[in-house]
Amino acid sequence: MTTGDERLDRQIQFILEIDKLKSIYRRTYLLNLERNENSSEHCWHLAVMAMLLAEHANEPVNLFRVLKMVLIHDIVEIDAGDIYVYDEIGTLSKVEKELKAADRLFGILPEDQAAEFRQLWEEFEEAKTPEARFAASLDRLMPMLHNYYTNGKSWTEHGITADRVENRNSRMQLGSARLWEATRGLIVDAVNQGFLIAPAGWE
Amino acid sequence: MTTGDERLDRQIQFILEIDKLKSIYRRTYLLNLERNENSSEHCWHLAVMAMLLAEHANEPVNLFRVLKMVLIHDIVEIDAGDIYVYDEIGTLSKVEKELKAADRLFGILPEDQAAEFRQLWEEFEEAKTPEARFAASLDRLMPMLHNYYTNGKSWTEHGITADRVENRNSRMQLGSARLWEATRGLIVDAVNQGFLIAPAGWE
Repeated sequence: MTTGDERLDRQIQFILEIDKLKSIYRRTYLLNLERNENSSEHCWHLAVMAMLLAEHANEPVNLFRVLKMVLIHDIVEIDAGDIYVYDEIGTLSKVEKELKAADRLFGILPEDQAAEFRQLWEEFEEAKTPEARFAASLDRLMPMLHNYYTNGKSWTEHGITADRVENRNSRMQLGSARLWEATRGLIVDAVNQGFLIAPAGWE
Repeated sequence: MTTGDERLDRQIQFILEIDKLKSIYRRTYLLNLERNENSSEHCWHLAVMAMLLAEHANEPVNLFRVLKMVLIHDIVEIDAGDIYVYDEIGTLSKVEKELKAADRLFGILPEDQAAEFRQLWEEFEEAKTPEARFAASLDRLMPMLHNYYTNGKSWTEHGITADRVENRNSRMQLGSARLWEATRGLIVDAVNQGFLIAPAGWE
């Protein structure tokens, strides 16, 4: 079906294409443990979180820009897949795969919109603006909450220890010292409750 | 776990609560037919659509506001459930259920943010602003695309005919005449292709 308007057709083609993000499953579990979370609902969750938590960013952020960034930041996973944050080998090949994915996926759009989405995605990845750093903090915070409130299910399944959790997530403080402070408390609590293993001498 | 900061605790409590929207399933199917779509990923999809299609709104819209509105518009379904757009009996009790849901759910938030979310949700429901009318158009357009590109799977399952599809969705033109025109073409095409039944004399 075409609308007879090439611009609208390309917009709709992209809208249909990104339905696939709903079938990209992450390592995290829903809080009710029904199933793994998918990347599209993760993006939605980050957007609502941004609306609520922007006041905790280290620097004032343009919330409109943060919303647009978190909404599209995982679209490249349609082709590149979701790389687990603790998968160091996967992370090495991630950049190349995601660049190819961005070319193909954003290339579906009319040129001006392709450029806008590409720019938002690159801004998120480079983490150089206050908006991108805050968005990245949310992207770290949510899996921490999912893990903590499912008694560490995904950490346990993948043998992740407290020192790795801390190392991989401490960058959160670049976007929000306040949210990192709360997260640090959550890691310590998870260790104390026994669902996150800490190496001897940790803390 | 508490952070020792009541405001942040309430924000996090709400963020955890809305994870439940990922388990509210709609009548529509993902385009790959893997499963029914859930309301949280539907909200994400509408938000990205808004970023792309705002230029087709009848009146200029504040996209930031549209994004916030579509992101939170279905949160009440956590308590009230998803009412199928063609379920006229369900629609009658919808208002009361959703009002109660809004009280409980938004009530988890700090007062100022509860008021903001409530206002956004009411604005969407009342459909009196250009932003709300455009958001409502997107909310109608996406299920049409899902149905059309799954050969009418959900229409067929629920015995929905072309006249009802047209009646229930023609309000889309209040937000975007352009998107309704495209949708009208899609309904006719679905009838011609035989996966949407039309009563005698329709069209």
